[in-house]
Amino acid sequence: MSEQPRGPLSGVRILDLTRVLAGPYCTTLLWELGADVLKIEMPGHGDDTRAFPPFQNGESVYFASINRGKRSLALDLKNEGDRKVFDGLLERADVLVENFRPGTMERLGYGYDAVKEKFPDVIYGAISGFGNTGPYRDLPAYDLIVQSLGGMISINGPEGSGGYRLGISLGDLAAGTFAALAISSALYERRASGQGRFIDIAMLDVQTMLLESALVRQFATGESQKPTGSRHPVITPFDVFQAKDGPIAVACANDHLFNELCDAIGAPALKEDPHYNNLFARYANQPALKIELEKVLAADTVAGWVEKLRPLGIPVAPIHTMADVVNDPQLKARNMFVEVDDAEMGKLKMAGSAFKISGYEQSPTRPPAPNLDEARADVMKELSLPHEEKRERVKQDPKEPLW
Amino acid sequence: MSEQPRGPLSGVRILDLTRVLAGPYCTTLLWELGADVLKIEMPGHGDDTRAFPPFQNGESVYFASINRGKRSLALDLKNEGDRKVFDGLLERADVLVENFRPGTMERLGYGYDAVKEKFPDVIYGAISGFGNTGPYRDLPAYDLIVQSLGGMISINGPEGSGGYRLGISLGDLAAGTFAALAISSALYERRASGQGRFIDIAMLDVQTMLLESALVRQFATGESQKPTGSRHPVITPFDVFQAKDGPIAVACANDHLFNELCDAIGAPALKEDPHYNNLFARYANQPALKIELEKVLAADTVAGWVEKLRPLGIPVAPIHTMADVVNDPQLKARNMFVEVDDAEMGKLKMAGSAFKISGYEQSPTRPPAPNLDEARADVMKELSLPHEEKRERVKQDPKEPLW
Repeated sequence: MSEQPRGPLSGVRILDLTRVLAGPYCTTLLWELGADVLKIEMPGHGDDTRAFPPFQNGESVYFASINRGKRSLALDLKNEGDRKVFDGLLERADVLVENFRPGTMERLGYGYDAVKEKFPDVIYGAISGFGNTGPYRDLPAYDLIVQSLGGMISINGPEGSGGYRLGISLGDLAAGTFAALAISSALYERRASGQGRFIDIAMLDVQTMLLESALVRQFATGESQKPTGSRHPVITPFDVFQAKDGPIAVACANDHLFNELCDAIGAPALKEDPHYNNLFARYANQPALKIELEKVLAADTVAGWVEKLRPLGIPVAPIHTMADVVNDPQLKARNMFVEVDDAEMGKLKMAGSAFKISGYEQSPTRPPAPNLDEARADVMKELSLPHEEKRERVKQDPKEPLW
Repeated sequence: MSEQPRGPLSGVRILDLTRVLAGPYCTTLLWELGADVLKIEMPGHGDDTRAFPPFQNGESVYFASINRGKRSLALDLKNEGDRKVFDGLLERADVLVENFRPGTMERLGYGYDAVKEKFPDVIYGAISGFGNTGPYRDLPAYDLIVQSLGGMISINGPEGSGGYRLGISLGDLAAGTFAALAISSALYERRASGQGRFIDIAMLDVQTMLLESALVRQFATGESQKPTGSRHPVITPFDVFQAKDGPIAVACANDHLFNELCDAIGAPALKEDPHYNNLFARYANQPALKIELEKVLAADTVAGWVEKLRPLGIPVAPIHTMADVVNDPQLKARNMFVEVDDAEMGKLKMAGSAFKISGYEQSPTRPPAPNLDEARADVMKELSLPHEEKRERVKQDPKEPLW
């Protein structure tokens, strides 16, 4: 790659054995920080998400968004010839990332110990549901299972409910992000020591680090947090309220903001009321305060209140649908929607990068996700191995999903 | 610090001006990766979360969990003497992290341009609600506001609802994690270039990168994702079902697993039924399939099904409450609950680290969070400045929150 460095990890070579979400999300983040990512896929099949809806011109938009910019090489790690290619790639790689079930890489002869023996400087990132140790090690894990066991479901959803899975696959996304962070820090350390590392990231462990106050409260008080709807478990008012024509978010995290809110909505009596005039009182009387505020907020529309309260510095917001999100002026100004021009799929739009780092250009476009095995000729040349013909592109038939 | 390196960022000095959640979470992750974190707080007041419930012996467990291991120095950046101390710290720092509203650091004379002029090698991480550019730049942002504008609320919660805030402050937590990742990658790059960077992380930008398929679907099809309860928007069955005595999570992401499930629960007819015998059919007939499965699952308890299905490799799980989470054998085996012995608060338990990296010891304990200004004598000595007496510890009165 002779172009301008895309980010601080420019020049880092990632050998990417990951599939579906947690692993590919990890390597996408590393790509966005500048790394070169070579995705190794099963010949003829490829990453399962190549068959995930929605589709555009018969190809998966889901796959395209989580694998933009990567290159693809199809290798069967049980095939001797392909293993030679893989060894050549390992020799040149800085990082290997995989998200198979623990034990799979060992069975293929590429567990960490085997890799380390030949390539001691390789940073080996393993992402799995439960990690490489412990009684759950060999259990299958999906995002839903991890959210269930990690307590995430039990604290998410309407008050009085038993909880709901988060609307995003945070089990996968967070594990991928934590893995990228661990890998990046190991790359930093390796510049001094020359040493590779084994990084063992478990989705369930990561969930535990995201429980915020629920976990410490459980340990400190024995009190189990339950779903609290849209409101913050402690801060009040910090909730979604009903205005004349729909819901509006209001977040007043201190007395000063609460007082400003009361004045601005024409309810100055509330700020003097001993039931509401300090944070602990508001917390204790949260249901009554919600009724009082909704009485007043019913007088105007969401748009009306946002227009009135925002310039006063009071934190309010409409509840954006996904259709609103793609039109948000701030996200547009921040280049958060980038365009991909894919030869087969046509134009696509997707999330850009939240990594705004000085000295690196913020491109409004991304290279497309690779066709299966698309990089074969290039990789063979880089490895000075005999050139093989590029394999045929696998077109997915949405009627016959492979997963 | 002469002890064994705690992690790959050992030796990295973080000058930490952050408060509340997004910023302190970022520096906690960096601490867990080995960095030394010096927390700069307002004299007499300190981080607002020192007054966040729950409390143990009058001190905040919330603060304690998000600031374990850090050191604290109280500085007023408007005071000339304190600014000299701060300049001395900047000279020795590798990284500065702050999460004030954009413009605040400039008004204090410590915006990036000013810092860069004197200390060009400092990596400057700025975390804010909307970032340093764009029309929302100066608006106040809290987690709820960012979740509202970012579309997160609109896709979370029971089917048919208007959506609910996620049960965790993911706006803060994710921004802190992404900031840590950007900082770590900039540290890697700096080892080669010697160059500092300005890193501008916006909570709203980060939300956009976590929308998974909802955003690309909106762009590709114009279809706005809505809350889908506990079920996956596409994969079926991937949901929480009612068993005899409560809810159970079942995640069968492919035909193979679905067939195994049908056999194991004694409903082999389902796997042959053309309404359910492939993923697209199951997706189309999801409500009917849920009814069929719940009919069968009603025959046994959650514990009964888990005991039966887990050994068969079928991904099932009970919905853990927070009380279950703290007793989970896998999390215990993974050292995910660490102990802190605080001189004033006594023993505390909190989440450990999901960063399992070879060559670094996994300690079952953490040093406590600092008392306000506790590191003063040490820091003055390190800077060879005249020693001042340690300031008094600020005890928070929960009746009089400072925020």
